Amino acid sequence: YLPNLSLQWIIIQSGVFSFGAGLLTFKLIPTIAELTTQANLTGMDLNKKGDPKFSGKKIPESLGICTSVVYLVCVIVFQLFQWFSFPETIQLSEYNAALTSICFMILLGFGDDVLNLRWRYKLILPMFASLPLLVAYAGGTSVVVPDISFPVNLRFYLGTVFDLGILYRIYLLLLAIFCTNSINILAGINGLEVGQSVVIATSIIIHNLIELTLSVNSTSAPQFGNPHLFSLILMVPFLFTTIALLFYNWYPSRVFVGDTYTYFAGMCFAVVAILCHFSKTLLLFFIPQILNFLYSIPQLFGLIPCPRHRVPKYNPETGKMHAIPTNLTILNLFLMIFGPMTERRLCIYLLAFQGFCSCIGFGIRYFIAPYFF
Amino acid sequence: YLPNLSLQWIIIQSGVFSFGAGLLTFKLIPTIAELTTQANLTGMDLNKKGDPKFSGKKIPESLGICTSVVYLVCVIVFQLFQWFSFPETIQLSEYNAALTSICFMILLGFGDDVLNLRWRYKLILPMFASLPLLVAYAGGTSVVVPDISFPVNLRFYLGTVFDLGILYRIYLLLLAIFCTNSINILAGINGLEVGQSVVIATSIIIHNLIELTLSVNSTSAPQFGNPHLFSLILMVPFLFTTIALLFYNWYPSRVFVGDTYTYFAGMCFAVVAILCHFSKTLLLFFIPQILNFLYSIPQLFGLIPCPRHRVPKYNPETGKMHAIPTNLTILNLFLMIFGPMTERRLCIYLLAFQGFCSCIGFGIRYFIAPYFF
Ligand SMILES: [Mg+2]
Ligand SMILES: [Mg+2]
Repeated sequence: YLPNLSLQWIIIQSGVFSFGAGLLTFKLIPTIAELTTQANLTGMDLNKKGDPKFSGKKIPESLGICTSVVYLVCVIVFQLFQWFSFPETIQLSEYNAALTSICFMILLGFGDDVLNLRWRYKLILPMFASLPLLVAYAGGTSVVVPDISFPVNLRFYLGTVFDLGILYRIYLLLLAIFCTNSINILAGINGLEVGQSVVIATSIIIHNLIELTLSVNSTSAPQFGNPHLFSLILMVPFLFTTIALLFYNWYPSRVFVGDTYTYFAGMCFAVVAILCHFSKTLLLFFIPQILNFLYSIPQLFGLIPCPRHRVPKYNPETGKMHAIPTNLTILNLFLMIFGPMTERRLCIYLLAFQGFCSCIGFGIRYFIAPYFF
Repeated sequence: YLPNLSLQWIIIQSGVFSFGAGLLTFKLIPTIAELTTQANLTGMDLNKKGDPKFSGKKIPESLGICTSVVYLVCVIVFQLFQWFSFPETIQLSEYNAALTSICFMILLGFGDDVLNLRWRYKLILPMFASLPLLVAYAGGTSVVVPDISFPVNLRFYLGTVFDLGILYRIYLLLLAIFCTNSINILAGINGLEVGQSVVIATSIIIHNLIELTLSVNSTSAPQFGNPHLFSLILMVPFLFTTIALLFYNWYPSRVFVGDTYTYFAGMCFAVVAILCHFSKTLLLFFIPQILNFLYSIPQLFGLIPCPRHRVPKYNPETGKMHAIPTNLTILNLFLMIFGPMTERRLCIYLLAFQGFCSCIGFGIRYFIAPYFF
């Protein structure tokens, strides 16, 4: 069965390229860390203040630049490779729109790390970075109306399919802005930004594989145009290069990732969700980020004073982190619920929660949603 | 006559957007210059050493980042605008390939300015940045063989049209690498990098306008797919944002532009030449850069020792620059031919030479080349 076989070949080859990209990232990070240190891109680890083992040590910052550039090179080289071996599989305009948005976002993140941009630029520029996606977005702008009759019968008023038109593209734009910023604010302890990205990327890859398998079973048509294949080709190298970064960023961090990484990661997720048409499913994998955002609202909008860093307080005597209840993040919420714990354990708890939420997301997507649509 | 009219409308609208982008660049540069100074991205002006008026003053570096990001935003917003008003005119895959290559090159240039990358990265990375262009390049890979009979009758051996196949794409790759690096090495005095880019961009725009006019006269078909329109849409905002930068970079420079700008400019030229199929004409506008490169070869390849900066020597007594004959650049060659002169005058001489070469280029393109093809 040929088309199916070459579909598997593409996925395997993408895996091989991505593994290479992961190794390259792993090998390059120490070199680039030296360069960022020389460029004075360094930070102090706030959660180890007063700990004699770590105190006063400057940690190289913005290592996301290494991960993201290797990622770009990998995706570009794979595009060339695909074009040689499976030219029929490339959707060039979408592929290049994805690359443009991701690359522009990396540039903005790195620019922010180096130049410390003001808030207004941080809010406006990601919008411009997402515009190429909206133009390249070739899918429909209609949504299926949920089949519910309480409190009102929605389908009676709106019909089965409702065309949101330009509003749908505005929703996609807001999604991209939310993805890039929500990862950036669920941060503050070693390994959390990169760890949550590993969990989300893994969830997306599982979702893509399920969808590809389902569609291969249900039809005999070649699956090359399947958006989930495109998503895999972008997500697998992301996962491998991110895992390489996690080796260095895990507790105790030898490198920090910077806004370069959080913007890059958020944009990668937004890109695949938008171009591959699973934006609602993506939001199911972002439950912790959504909770953290909602919980943060009073501080983000200035109703409660907002310090520069909203991390918990480290106690060097016990080696544990303690909640600061006025800093409204789920980090502090976890510490309030489960009591003080070490930074490493807190990160593991939060990542386990992220994984648990992904499982709930899969449950909603595959068992509950079919009842309503 | 409608299609022709909307063609003019697109060009006028692109001009309006570009003028806005130029104004924005002009307004933003002082703000961004403060940020780059705070980030310690500054340089000393080597050609004013010993001059009490300037001595010891640190000049903000890498202001190319401001120009190039405003340029990207302008091109992206214009893409959105075109997609609303003239959807039939967009070649999305090429548009996005252009954006990807330019954006990746800006990222590499800025990364180089901040991190001082080693030579091997500088040579390898621009290659990857150009790959999306090669994949998106939809033109033929054949060349018209010149109709000459001395020393051999080429058409007798090769036919009228000769398909170079993959070699043609390798030629395009080398062109992109040459463009980015040749502007970077024809530098060293105030205003030269930006000034030469203004001359080259103006030449390209004139060439595009001539070609558009010729094709409008010769056919009644709508000209939307015309690659010269696409080139104009990329070059006009480049010209305006570059002119804004020149205001600050002209002698005596209040800002430096950094590799960010030279890489960005070189890649913009390579992108339009490749995607719009006028790579040979572009080389006619690069005659001074080609001469400078050829003259530099002994130093670039290490046959003669090569200092970090190959600028002429400034004499603070006379206020003039003097040639250092062992530094093989056309800057020193000009000083050897015309005698010592001020930095400002040397820059004007070189830019006049660039303009003169463009005129010769136009002569070759429109009067001599038709005899051979
Ligand atoms: Mg951050
Ligand atoms: Mg330079």
